[in-house]
Amino acid sequence: MVNLKGKDILHGAQFSREELERIMDLADTFRIQLADRPGLDLLEGYVLATLFFEPSTRTRLSFETAMHRLGGNVVGFSSAESSSVAKGETLADTIHTVDQYVDMIVMRHPALGSAAEAASIAHSPVINGGDGAGQHPTQALLDLYTVRSECGKIDGIILVLCGDLKNGRTVHSGVEVYKHFNCKLIFVAPEQLKMPAEITSRLKSLGIQFEETNDLVSAIRHADALYMTRIQKERFVNPADYDLLRNSFILTREMIEANNPKLTVLHPLPRVNEITTDVDGLAGAAYFRQAKNGVYVRMALLAMIAGKM
Amino acid sequence: MVNLKGKDILHGAQFSREELERIMDLADTFRIQLADRPGLDLLEGYVLATLFFEPSTRTRLSFETAMHRLGGNVVGFSSAESSSVAKGETLADTIHTVDQYVDMIVMRHPALGSAAEAASIAHSPVINGGDGAGQHPTQALLDLYTVRSECGKIDGIILVLCGDLKNGRTVHSGVEVYKHFNCKLIFVAPEQLKMPAEITSRLKSLGIQFEETNDLVSAIRHADALYMTRIQKERFVNPADYDLLRNSFILTREMIEANNPKLTVLHPLPRVNEITTDVDGLAGAAYFRQAKNGVYVRMALLAMIAGKM
Amino acid sequence: MVNLKGKDILHGAQFSREELERIMDLADTFRIQLADRPGLDLLEGYVLATLFFEPSTRTRLSFETAMHRLGGNVVGFSSAESSSVAKGETLADTIHTVDQYVDMIVMRHPALGSAAEAASIAHSPVINGGDGAGQHPTQALLDLYTVRSECGKIDGIILVLCGDLKNGRTVHSGVEVYKHFNCKLIFVAPEQLKMPAEITSRLKSLGIQFEETNDLVSAIRHADALYMTRIQKERFVNPADYDLLRNSFILTREMIEANNPKLTVLHPLPRVNEITTDVDGLAGAAYFRQAKNGVYVRMALLAMIAGKM
Repeated sequence: MVNLKGKDILHGAQFSREELERIMDLADTFRIQLADRPGLDLLEGYVLATLFFEPSTRTRLSFETAMHRLGGNVVGFSSAESSSVAKGETLADTIHTVDQYVDMIVMRHPALGSAAEAASIAHSPVINGGDGAGQHPTQALLDLYTVRSECGKIDGIILVLCGDLKNGRTVHSGVEVYKHFNCKLIFVAPEQLKMPAEITSRLKSLGIQFEETNDLVSAIRHADALYMTRIQKERFVNPADYDLLRNSFILTREMIEANNPKLTVLHPLPRVNEITTDVDGLAGAAYFRQAKNGVYVRMALLAMIAGKM
Repeated sequence: MVNLKGKDILHGAQFSREELERIMDLADTFRIQLADRPGLDLLEGYVLATLFFEPSTRTRLSFETAMHRLGGNVVGFSSAESSSVAKGETLADTIHTVDQYVDMIVMRHPALGSAAEAASIAHSPVINGGDGAGQHPTQALLDLYTVRSECGKIDGIILVLCGDLKNGRTVHSGVEVYKHFNCKLIFVAPEQLKMPAEITSRLKSLGIQFEETNDLVSAIRHADALYMTRIQKERFVNPADYDLLRNSFILTREMIEANNPKLTVLHPLPRVNEITTDVDGLAGAAYFRQAKNGVYVRMALLAMIAGKM
Repeated sequence: MVNLKGKDILHGAQFSREELERIMDLADTFRIQLADRPGLDLLEGYVLATLFFEPSTRTRLSFETAMHRLGGNVVGFSSAESSSVAKGETLADTIHTVDQYVDMIVMRHPALGSAAEAASIAHSPVINGGDGAGQHPTQALLDLYTVRSECGKIDGIILVLCGDLKNGRTVHSGVEVYKHFNCKLIFVAPEQLKMPAEITSRLKSLGIQFEETNDLVSAIRHADALYMTRIQKERFVNPADYDLLRNSFILTREMIEANNPKLTVLHPLPRVNEITTDVDGLAGAAYFRQAKNGVYVRMALLAMIAGKM
């Protein structure tokens, strides 16, 4: 019996397959319910704190929308400057204080491990909305949900993960949820940005099928879904290397139409240039639907940790 | 039959007289309803995004208040810095994403035409809350509504528009709504800041009565209402010219009492020095009531584009 | 009969003992009600403006939470930059405008007397959320309430106030409420940061018992409660003086356990180093409960000034 009441959401690896399926089923339920009414009253009277020490459009606004669609309310801040951190207060004291006010906390903070620190202090459940180069577990949940809703299933699919696999927190969180579904993973990255060895060796020991390549076109030919991520310019010492690599990982409409017209394309957004805008019009371009799914998945999480589901 | 369900609100010229009257009648209805209860539940469960890429007190807070008075909720940001624009995301992608979350979008952005661009992308209705030197249609609606509620009618009145008529987006949007009501318009501006020829020639072709002058005192003598606007210092090359012109367009209590004690005075606010504060106490000083009217008019618009009225 | 409907909350000295007790009793009622439901609907449809011209975590978030727990809504800003102050609007005009939109206003502003100025303009009740070096009356109310709820009573207790008693607005507001309860006050401060003579001489004329000392350990030995505040480094000309003084006013777990293990410890927060973190685990460490009490006390105030209680 799945029960997330009062639980913190900190890491992609914390979920069992049963929990993942329960979250996705509940997201489906909310999606259906919102098709014929604007909102629900499940969390009426509840208050969520959104503590964003770094800017965010998607994560903050979709959590706030999720809370409002459930009938709840939100307090918080969208940058460190408008909080008491400016007066020299420790993160621990800020969290301890806000914990007195609200029922649940979502936090984004630049320091790796900050969400876990907050969770160790707060009595209220803490949701990690991104802790620096660490984890972003709710992104992994909405990615997984989007694969299921676009491909009709997750078990046994071929999923290509492309881009900066070394530094990308969404792919690191993602691997932790895909591993439960017997999918075949294909990692496409330049040599310098490959998936860290500690992750690949763990996948081996778990018996997860995966391949590594730098040939995006071959990788997508038989894939069900492609998860694109941004290659971050600031990681390169030599700008010429960056330009070279970047150009080999631009997904275009022609590439999809020539090699796999039914390919499902995901991206955590924001994008820079790694998916050309003419891809947006393809039936398989799922990244804006993926953003929408973030609301349903976060509604599911909020309802479950509040003990309402 | 007036129906604004799902419509974008982009430009003062988009409204028919019938639509303008329907919006004002509905604003009246909400004004009466709020006289004996704090709020309604018409938009319960709905979510409005307020995307303010430039600061605003009046437009943002009155839209948010309007949404709350209708029972709805709000997500958004009040400056570009706390959004993902900081990460290099295009306006198009930001809008496309937020469109997945909410039911309606209000946007203020420094670029002329940005609201129209957003509307071309979003499935949700987009309301232009000011696009640079372009339009500010909801300001024009609340101005018109204030004229009607202060003067008892709009048809046939004499309305003076004074200040920077060349650059002022509120007067440009305003002319587009006044033209439906057979008012006589008197434009009072220094030579350098006259109403653009393209607007005056269009008014001529439409048969709208108007006069141009730089004598504010004569203009207000037989007027029903005066719409003051700020003369923007930054438009002048020679600061001495600015000071000279600015001083000829300061509305004082003495000017009103000596020439037209019953004059209705409007201003979109914020003001700098163009209306002295001793005017505030006059019965005809309507600019703060005008601000309040912004809530009723925006409630009317939100309810109508949501398809609830 | 206590009635705060429509009243401004500007200064700690404005309350009668009867009003203070009514506010605290109502805070108790809300605390009990929230023990078995997440929120109430007393202020459904009401809108509170939170106008924070300076950053704040506690005051802003606890007022916003209080409003949401009562079923109401909030509009506002959390820094001057995202308001029209940036366009040169006067505080008076900003307040006059926002007053048109909302039912109640909470304001924090760096200028002493700014809240009183706002109250003189606004028709809606104005709550002072801190006006520079002036007052912070709602902090005094929640401090008083915490003393009552931690110590079981206020009358006749011995209360130590320690730290920067010269500049601290929370102790200045505090003295104005403690004076109604026949408590004995012990002021512990370095010579340079003593309670201002105008306050001590007024206490004398009112017959309030108080002592002044710089010996914190002796002061707490027979005290019921200690109210610690931050010594502000920026007040000192000579940094060495600051370090010396600061070190004599650090409250440690050892000091409490050796001298008065049952001591109730309060602090308005944020703290820097004046209470070591190992104090947090003591039963008498009440400062985070005090933060929570801020929600109940502010709910009581909001409900009363709205005329609902």
